[in-house]
Amino acid sequence: MAEIEMGQNLKTLNNTIAKQNRSGFQEHHIFVLNIMGSPGSGKTTLLENILPVLAEKLRIFVIEGDLATQNDAERIRKTGVNAVQINTNGACHLDARMIQTEINRLDLNSIDLLIIENVGNLVCPISYDLGEDLRMVILSTPEGEDKPLKYPSAMLHTDAVVLTKTDLAQYVDVKIDTMKTYIHQVNPKALILEVGKFDGAFAVNEVISYLLEKIAAWKG
Amino acid sequence: MAEIEMGQNLKTLNNTIAKQNRSGFQEHHIFVLNIMGSPGSGKTTLLENILPVLAEKLRIFVIEGDLATQNDAERIRKTGVNAVQINTNGACHLDARMIQTEINRLDLNSIDLLIIENVGNLVCPISYDLGEDLRMVILSTPEGEDKPLKYPSAMLHTDAVVLTKTDLAQYVDVKIDTMKTYIHQVNPKALILEVGKFDGAFAVNEVISYLLEKIAAWKG
Repeated sequence: MAEIEMGQNLKTLNNTIAKQNRSGFQEHHIFVLNIMGSPGSGKTTLLENILPVLAEKLRIFVIEGDLATQNDAERIRKTGVNAVQINTNGACHLDARMIQTEINRLDLNSIDLLIIENVGNLVCPISYDLGEDLRMVILSTPEGEDKPLKYPSAMLHTDAVVLTKTDLAQYVDVKIDTMKTYIHQVNPKALILEVGKFDGAFAVNEVISYLLEKIAAWKG
Repeated sequence: MAEIEMGQNLKTLNNTIAKQNRSGFQEHHIFVLNIMGSPGSGKTTLLENILPVLAEKLRIFVIEGDLATQNDAERIRKTGVNAVQINTNGACHLDARMIQTEINRLDLNSIDLLIIENVGNLVCPISYDLGEDLRMVILSTPEGEDKPLKYPSAMLHTDAVVLTKTDLAQYVDVKIDTMKTYIHQVNPKALILEVGKFDGAFAVNEVISYLLEKIAAWKG
């Protein structure tokens, strides 16, 4: 009981700061995307492939979350997009205060799109609002068909699910249609996008179009 | 600060119950294995493939942890080994109390080996002692070469790391030797075992031999 109350207090505090973040983003006309998924689901690889196209139209900044290493921020910077790395030192998710600390250091007038890549985890990040406008959960086909049913909170609290590594489905006995059925069984409203590597190139057009549409609709 | 104190109190409580579990297991001569890893890393598949061999020599019981579904316990029972499913309803890890509740229902005199498959998560389960004798962290090659560096706590607090889906390494540009180097960079003492599917069959002999050796040494 005490544990539940403590958890509730932390969530309430997080939600308060997330609201402050959201107000700040709105004031500066910044669209914010929160990307979540298991370790190795393909979050950073997706970003590496969509950023060069998106950066032609938008001024982008990326916040990377990990327990340790600067690896992902370095990978992002190689695409030409600026990025900062948050090391959570043990915490299994980013929280609104970590984001607030970072945005206080940024020139918000120079950003149109802020992308936050959360810590690799299909559970913890889901219940922490960071002040984002859109959520994407990345699920890779080698994780297995039944993962949408086994991690329902991740499916429920997202706008879109990006199925990655669809080219590997054939090697791991995973049927993509079954995975989609399970996603919609948990959340009929979730949009499902697919990403795979074919002939050496990542097919990411669906994700790029979806994001540009969402940002255009939000701008009004 | 309050957050850190709350966390410490919960950990202390967990450690107290884990000690009670461990005493109970020792009293009944039960060897306990705690298996951890990301969603879809191959934990249940590994069990499906080692249990038929181990069950010829040992009386085994499996406790499965997941946020939702009975899927994994059902998969285990199909191998002929008895299993029970704990649904954590949101919690990203099993804790010592959940295990205590289950073992209070079991006939401990009829078990030689208790295997606990934790919730799919490379972060949270690591810091919760359940009363086990041995830990295995499962890491699949499609998760990417750099994951040992990005999730150091999982590498540090385990006896062995099982690299799974080694047959997929060639499709995902992952060098198994690099992954091994990174594991030993974080934890030089971690034993590394490999599991892959070759010609339609899972090669799991290394894991079976390792477990049988560990159990024999523990029996003395």
